[in-house]
Amino acid sequence: MSLLVVGSVAFDSVKTPFGEAEEVLGGSATYFSTAASYFTDVSLVAVVGEDFPEKHITFLKSRKIDTEGIERQKGKTFRWKGEYGFELNEARTLDTQLNVFQSFKPKLPEKYRNIKVVFLANIDPDLQRDVLRQVDSPDVVACDTMNFWIEGKKDSLLETLKLVDILLINDGEARELSGEPNLVKAAEIIKSYGPKTLIIKRGEYGALMFKDRKIFAAPAYPLEAVFDPTGAGDCFAGGFMGYLANTMNFEESNIRKAIIFGSVMASYNVESFSLDRIKSLDYRELESRYREFKGLTHFEDLS
Amino acid sequence: MSLLVVGSVAFDSVKTPFGEAEEVLGGSATYFSTAASYFTDVSLVAVVGEDFPEKHITFLKSRKIDTEGIERQKGKTFRWKGEYGFELNEARTLDTQLNVFQSFKPKLPEKYRNIKVVFLANIDPDLQRDVLRQVDSPDVVACDTMNFWIEGKKDSLLETLKLVDILLINDGEARELSGEPNLVKAAEIIKSYGPKTLIIKRGEYGALMFKDRKIFAAPAYPLEAVFDPTGAGDCFAGGFMGYLANTMNFEESNIRKAIIFGSVMASYNVESFSLDRIKSLDYRELESRYREFKGLTHFEDLS
Repeated sequence: MSLLVVGSVAFDSVKTPFGEAEEVLGGSATYFSTAASYFTDVSLVAVVGEDFPEKHITFLKSRKIDTEGIERQKGKTFRWKGEYGFELNEARTLDTQLNVFQSFKPKLPEKYRNIKVVFLANIDPDLQRDVLRQVDSPDVVACDTMNFWIEGKKDSLLETLKLVDILLINDGEARELSGEPNLVKAAEIIKSYGPKTLIIKRGEYGALMFKDRKIFAAPAYPLEAVFDPTGAGDCFAGGFMGYLANTMNFEESNIRKAIIFGSVMASYNVESFSLDRIKSLDYRELESRYREFKGLTHFEDLS
Repeated sequence: MSLLVVGSVAFDSVKTPFGEAEEVLGGSATYFSTAASYFTDVSLVAVVGEDFPEKHITFLKSRKIDTEGIERQKGKTFRWKGEYGFELNEARTLDTQLNVFQSFKPKLPEKYRNIKVVFLANIDPDLQRDVLRQVDSPDVVACDTMNFWIEGKKDSLLETLKLVDILLINDGEARELSGEPNLVKAAEIIKSYGPKTLIIKRGEYGALMFKDRKIFAAPAYPLEAVFDPTGAGDCFAGGFMGYLANTMNFEESNIRKAIIFGSVMASYNVESFSLDRIKSLDYRELESRYREFKGLTHFEDLS
């Protein structure tokens, strides 16, 4: 099944203790769609400026990502600049230039309207609902958000959440959105806003899924060399949603598998700058790391 | 098999957002031995002051813990006072009164000397080796430590580690001990100091085991009400070592099971102040939560 994603396409400048990258391809929708492309067809809606090189479009197309929804506008492409310390857990944003992203009004090409699985990456919740109004009758809607919208546009965000089946956010965002420090209680509060399934991303600590009264805990893959965490959450979401869109099975047991595939994609992504590692993986590499997750978490039943 | 533990017995005064407890029974050896007592016989070596009430000794004896190694000295018992914020992740120490613990010289009763499994809780590494000199020929030695010794007595700590099979520390300690922020690399460095098995405790994020080239990741049990985290790490170690001493199987697959039992004990402990929750558990409650850990972590194999 095809998967629709709306989000940012950007140029990132990133500094980590291990190196530096200048104006490399980034953005939530870019990471998401590349990760998802290993599992399913992806249709991308985003905006770029006149400075966005054709080679990046060519790359996305090479991943069989439909780029018809990438609008090219007068002006410059969204730019983000950030820096990580030795623990690599959180980026310090040094500069954000929204550029053409500031006036982004997502407009779906006609042929995208009947897509059944939708991912609304972290954009203004007003725009997230704009997108949903342009989709005929989606089976499953998932979304991401961030503290900026929780603090600045909570009412609009709550309106969006009423329309969302799966919410993917990090632990700090879950605490802030619910006003509750305990994650189990926070999850119940957030589920009462609409999403039946909540995935809480915890970076190097993995992810938690809350669905009905069930909880699933997935670790992150312990890597000897985390090079650049930029885009890890978006790759997680891409692997996760890509696997679900491919299987069209939204039962809890399949959501667990999707979380592991999301974790697999995130683990590969942080091994290098930009999309360098995930742009040319082999599906067998995904399966092999999936099996490593099995070995990482397995313990025997009680006899 | 019997299990020897050397550590602190103390009075704790703890304040959390949910309540306060004044001079309740605490200390690393107390938590450890109570948790371990569900799995095996425990022999305890510690020091208390004249103010230590007989009722606490009676309680430990009721858990079939051998208290002959608890020395009573002139002066007051070790006291610790701490406070937790809403996220309950780290205590702020408000006051420490070492009292009789300051001149603690562990002395093993004759009958403890042939015990085969030893746990050296977080005490001066000089004293940890003093204890080992008093044990005839232990099969397995495990230990804990803390930043205070890593910073102040690193040479002595490294001497101790040469004699240790299993080291249990938290992630911050692992990073400080190895001088390496990446935990996978830190684990390799720490294993080169002596311990063949390293368990890294990560509080609400669970634990990681490093043994040979294998890694095991266990989550913490997601609790709706964490009341007081004091002693969680010691209860983890107690359940872990108690299960190992009971089974005397130190293969990797059994160490994984032991980690889950450690996590079970820690999860019960944080549900109330002091030892209130773990002082009278039923073994079926431990098995039931072990099975819940299975449900929490299970995902299907690839077909």
